[in-house]
Amino acid sequence: MQETMTTFEAFRTALGSRPDLDVKARADAAARQAVLTKPPGSLGRLEDLVLWLAEVQGRAMPRLETVRALIFAANHGVAAQGVSAFPAAVTAQMVQNFEAGGAAINQLCRAAGIDLRVVTLDLDRPTADFTLGPAMSEAETCAAIATGREAAQAEADLLVVGEMGIGNTTAAAALSAALIGGDGEIWAGPGTGLDRSGVARKAAVIDRALTCHRGVADPLEVLRRLGGREIAALVGALAGARLNRTPLLLDGFVTGAAAAVLHRLDPDLLRHVGAAHLSAEPAHRRQLDALGLDPLLHLEMRLGEASGAALAVQICRAALACHQGMATFAEAGISNGG
Amino acid sequence: MQETMTTFEAFRTALGSRPDLDVKARADAAARQAVLTKPPGSLGRLEDLVLWLAEVQGRAMPRLETVRALIFAANHGVAAQGVSAFPAAVTAQMVQNFEAGGAAINQLCRAAGIDLRVVTLDLDRPTADFTLGPAMSEAETCAAIATGREAAQAEADLLVVGEMGIGNTTAAAALSAALIGGDGEIWAGPGTGLDRSGVARKAAVIDRALTCHRGVADPLEVLRRLGGREIAALVGALAGARLNRTPLLLDGFVTGAAAAVLHRLDPDLLRHVGAAHLSAEPAHRRQLDALGLDPLLHLEMRLGEASGAALAVQICRAALACHQGMATFAEAGISNGG
Repeated sequence: MQETMTTFEAFRTALGSRPDLDVKARADAAARQAVLTKPPGSLGRLEDLVLWLAEVQGRAMPRLETVRALIFAANHGVAAQGVSAFPAAVTAQMVQNFEAGGAAINQLCRAAGIDLRVVTLDLDRPTADFTLGPAMSEAETCAAIATGREAAQAEADLLVVGEMGIGNTTAAAALSAALIGGDGEIWAGPGTGLDRSGVARKAAVIDRALTCHRGVADPLEVLRRLGGREIAALVGALAGARLNRTPLLLDGFVTGAAAAVLHRLDPDLLRHVGAAHLSAEPAHRRQLDALGLDPLLHLEMRLGEASGAALAVQICRAALACHQGMATFAEAGISNGG
Repeated sequence: MQETMTTFEAFRTALGSRPDLDVKARADAAARQAVLTKPPGSLGRLEDLVLWLAEVQGRAMPRLETVRALIFAANHGVAAQGVSAFPAAVTAQMVQNFEAGGAAINQLCRAAGIDLRVVTLDLDRPTADFTLGPAMSEAETCAAIATGREAAQAEADLLVVGEMGIGNTTAAAALSAALIGGDGEIWAGPGTGLDRSGVARKAAVIDRALTCHRGVADPLEVLRRLGGREIAALVGALAGARLNRTPLLLDGFVTGAAAAVLHRLDPDLLRHVGAAHLSAEPAHRRQLDALGLDPLLHLEMRLGEASGAALAVQICRAALACHQGMATFAEAGISNGG
């Protein structure tokens, strides 16, 4: 696969071969929902989740035996502009923490029965500062996309994706602005904890980047210029999951920026994607609205590292448990008012 | 205990002996949160949940070993007014379904490691139709409160409460109107699935009840006149949990009406209570706002039977797993930007 992935054109070709979703499996799952012992629709979004899993997996009775979390980690040249509350060294330190089992995501994966894999992308080689020029070359971008696609190849019934990269909410904000519209003031937020003057500085950095790269229309070229290696890997993972018919939950604002790249290429590329949560990052709502995604959870989380997505896996498991285990009205001998 | 519970006065006296919460345990839990490997506050409401558990349980490291769900079931004279999409016989049928393991709550409890107990209150003896007179006598109300208190006595680290009772969203709406303010149009909703004309009929029924019982100020007297046995049992369970320092999660609109009774007696009686979710019942938001409660989940559920509360237990477990299992900055050797 890596062989075919050294140019954007090859990636576009691969995306063109994506399968359709399974309308029949969705309809069959809906028919079962209608006769389970509850008022129709009363499980709300839990019912929608099951239909989505059915349609993407192509199984009227979806399964969640293997759930994987993928965290992509990378470093950013733009971090030198003072856009984060933490120093760039924290990216590698947190990767070690993931590997030692001490981070929030380790606890959340254990609680939800999720296999965690951390994928680092050249941590000792930050991308170029995109206020001065493109963050990456086409070959670097394609290599990161390929790494993400490959990580998404492992058999899974559900994928959740997250990231770690000091400075990457700046990249995500710049990408969102370029792909969706708006300026630095609209898209900059506190990230890991900037104060008001820090957010203003970050907005100015984003505006300089937008000026530097204005007029670029191709979403993959926008990714190359304003993204980062973990964001490109997320684009690859999302694409790989679409090609494999694996349902995928986004985490927060950075993962949403990766989704925005694919959405601009073709909204159909995100039919397998759900938004796990609305983060505390102020522009996340605007970003998800542009993607047509309605977040499952609203818990004011802003940690990244797939933490919100891992939590949403519990909601998916509960939804499926109801779909699998509930009695029908006929089985339970209950008067169906409907 | 039942001995002392035959009058409202005895219940009021019992409530007066409630313990304070543990401010020190909360502060100690907050001190640990501050040094875990995440930006301060980045786990959002998960951090708040841990502090709440600590303060109510009186443990800086809270525990969730035993989590119990209590479902109270009863029948309502007002069901004869055509206020539900389902016939009254469904209350007993659903209780059988709970006992056979076929309901949504059975699957949700299994998924979340919750012990489920179903408590029926004279299913073959509906309360009186409260559009014509009081739903219950003081002795009946006190008996139901005592049943709820007793159910909440079993040792638990967290309780979740729910209900089953055809017609009980009408009672909950009438109670909410009498305790919080507003009329039938404001408080009536589709419940298990009324259409628009059904909701209008339900609103008119509520208005007739409010007219019949107007001028009643004492919240326990309002409960007696407009409530039901399962709602009185919920009041008892909430009170018992407060006396025992057991954190408790409300489910939907009917459980919120029970909470409104205690809130009107004294808001301090709800310091151990959280709102698990915002249901699809339109007036639930208004009710929770009046109680000062911010729901954890927003999943458009409207099933009752503790289903939303059981789901929120997963969020509590995840929050506690992070608090217990995460490394500190010092342990992980990570630069703390804060």
